[in-house]
Amino acid sequence: MQLLAPYLLFLGDAHDQLAAKTADGIARWRPSKVVGQLRLPGCQADVGVADMDLDQAVAAGARTMVIGVANRGGVFSPSWQPSLLRALDRGLDLAAGLHERLADLPEVAERARLRGRQLFDLRQPDRSFEVGTGRPRAGRRCLTVGTDCSVGKMYTALALERALQDRQIQADFRATGQTGILIAGSGVSVDAVVADFISGATEWLAPANQPDHWDLIEGQGSLFHPSFAGVSLGLLHGAQAEALVMCTEPHRPHMRGLPGQPLPDLAACITLNEHCARLTCPAARVVGVAANTSRLDPVAAADWLQATGQQLGLPVVDPLRGGVEPLVAALLA
Amino acid sequence: MQLLAPYLLFLGDAHDQLAAKTADGIARWRPSKVVGQLRLPGCQADVGVADMDLDQAVAAGARTMVIGVANRGGVFSPSWQPSLLRALDRGLDLAAGLHERLADLPEVAERARLRGRQLFDLRQPDRSFEVGTGRPRAGRRCLTVGTDCSVGKMYTALALERALQDRQIQADFRATGQTGILIAGSGVSVDAVVADFISGATEWLAPANQPDHWDLIEGQGSLFHPSFAGVSLGLLHGAQAEALVMCTEPHRPHMRGLPGQPLPDLAACITLNEHCARLTCPAARVVGVAANTSRLDPVAAADWLQATGQQLGLPVVDPLRGGVEPLVAALLA
Repeated sequence: MQLLAPYLLFLGDAHDQLAAKTADGIARWRPSKVVGQLRLPGCQADVGVADMDLDQAVAAGARTMVIGVANRGGVFSPSWQPSLLRALDRGLDLAAGLHERLADLPEVAERARLRGRQLFDLRQPDRSFEVGTGRPRAGRRCLTVGTDCSVGKMYTALALERALQDRQIQADFRATGQTGILIAGSGVSVDAVVADFISGATEWLAPANQPDHWDLIEGQGSLFHPSFAGVSLGLLHGAQAEALVMCTEPHRPHMRGLPGQPLPDLAACITLNEHCARLTCPAARVVGVAANTSRLDPVAAADWLQATGQQLGLPVVDPLRGGVEPLVAALLA
Repeated sequence: MQLLAPYLLFLGDAHDQLAAKTADGIARWRPSKVVGQLRLPGCQADVGVADMDLDQAVAAGARTMVIGVANRGGVFSPSWQPSLLRALDRGLDLAAGLHERLADLPEVAERARLRGRQLFDLRQPDRSFEVGTGRPRAGRRCLTVGTDCSVGKMYTALALERALQDRQIQADFRATGQTGILIAGSGVSVDAVVADFISGATEWLAPANQPDHWDLIEGQGSLFHPSFAGVSLGLLHGAQAEALVMCTEPHRPHMRGLPGQPLPDLAACITLNEHCARLTCPAARVVGVAANTSRLDPVAAADWLQATGQQLGLPVVDPLRGGVEPLVAALLA
C-alpha cells in the first residue's frame, strides 16, 4: 500500500472542525505532503491550507485526494460522491479511513477501474492478528488515554514523539486510527479489527523493542464512552504501557456524539485507567494530563491547568498552548 | 440461514473437555437435535452421546455435522479436514462458529459446491450494526459476566431462562457466541463484530421490550482477561443490564489459555463489573455468583459456596450441583 503524495484534503460538508480531524492532523504534522483543501458548500471546517477546486489541485501537483472528514458511523455521505467521481476523472487516486470502503461504492469503484486509479481504504486492516497474550515484553511504552473521543490523543502522542526525538531518544509514534496511519505511513485501525483481536493487534503494532526505545501509542475512545469503551480497554491491555497520558477537553457539555451522557470525573478516569492497565503492566501509572483548553480564554485556561495539576499532583498541560515538556520530564523521571 | 437438524457433533481431537464446549452445550440444552458425536483419535472430550462414524450418523438421520470443537485463535485444524470432506461426500451440511470460515477452506468450499451441500459459518455476523448509544431502554435485563473465559456464562443464562419460564415469566436467552446461537437459533457472535460496534451489536441483540420481560444475555470473556476484555466491556455497556450474575471457576491454576496470568480476586471482579456497568445502567448490581465447583468434592464445594456467600453477602450457587433458584429469587427480589 503506497499512497502518492502530495494530497488534496477533502473536507466535504463537515459539520464542525472535529469532523475534519483527519484533514487537520495531516495538515499539521505533514504539511509538506499537502497542496490544499477542497470544501463543499456548508462546510464548517477549515484546516488552514489553501482552498482549491480539483483543477487547481491538479495544477498544484496533487496525486491523491484524501477523504479528511468523518461522520458518525463511518459511512460516505451521498453528497460527497460527485466530488469523488470528478477527482478520479481528473486522475487522482482516492484514500479514506472510514468503516465503509471506497471499494464498496459501486459507481466509485467502477470509475476508478475505468480511469485506472487506485482506491486506498486505510481503515480495513490488510492482515490478520493473533489474540493477545499479555506476556511482558521489552521496551518502553506510553499510551495516550482519554476522558472522551476526539480530545487530542493522537496529537499528544505525536508531540511526545517529536519531543523525545529532539532529545535524541529513540521513539516511534504508533498509529491506531486513520489519520495517524496517514501521518505515520503505517499502523492499525484498532477499532476496525475483529473484536476478539483488539489487544492482539495492539501487541503486534507495538512489539518488543530495545530497552531504552519508546513507543508512543495513539489511544482511542475512552473507558467511559458507551459506544467505544471496548476498543479502549483492549488497547489498554495490549499496549502494556508503563506510562499513560490522560487526554481531556474540560467543559464539554456531554460525551462526543451522545447528548445527555455526562463527562467522567477526571480523577475517576485516571483511577480506572491505571487499575485496568495494571492487568498487563503492574507498574502502569498516569504520568500527566494533556488538556485541550480551547474553550477557555488564556487566563482561565492557565488557571484551570494549574488548579487541576495541584488537585491531581500531576503535570497538566495544554500541548497546543504550552507544549509537552512537563510530560516528557515525567516520562523520563 | 436455516440449519437442518438433527446434528452430528464433531469433536475432532479436542485436547480437553472445555475445547468441546460447543458440542457440550448443544447436547445438554437441545438433546433432541443430536444423533451422536464423532471423535478422532486422541480426542480428550466426550459430550455423553453415542459415538458414531459418518455412515452410522447418516443412517441415524443426521443432516448437518456441527463443528463442536474450538481451538485458540479460532482456526480449523488441518487434522479435521478429511472428516469435513467425507461428511460432505456423505451428504451432510457443515456448520461452524470459528473465526476462520468453512467457506474460506478451498478444498472444503469446492467439495461443498460439487456435492450441493451448504456451509454455515455462524460466527460471522450476517448484518451490520450501528454504534452503541447507551440510551436507556425499557425491559429487564440480566447479563452473565465472569472472572475468566469458559466459566459457565452461557449455561447460567440458559438455566435462568428456563427457571423464569417455569414461573410463567416472559424471558429470552440472548446468544452472543457460536454455541449459544446454535442453541437459540439466532444471536450475534459479539467477539466477531468489528470492534467499534461491540456495544451497538449488543443493544441490537437485546432491544427495548415489555417492562416485565427479561432478557438473559450470555456474557463473554472477562474484564480481567488480557486477550478478550475489550469484548467483555463493550458487552457490559451494550447490555445495559440491571442485574449481573458473576460466573467463576474457583481453583483454576491460571486464566484460560494464559499460563502465568493469575485469576482475579472475586470481590474485585464484582466491584469492577458493577463500576463499569453503571456507565449505562446506574442501578446495575451483581445479584449473585454462579460457580463451577467441579474441581472440588461435594463437601468441599458446599463449604466453598457457603463461605463465599457469607463473605460477599450474595447468593452463591453451583448451577450444575444445586440449580439457580437462589439467583432467580435475587433477580426478582
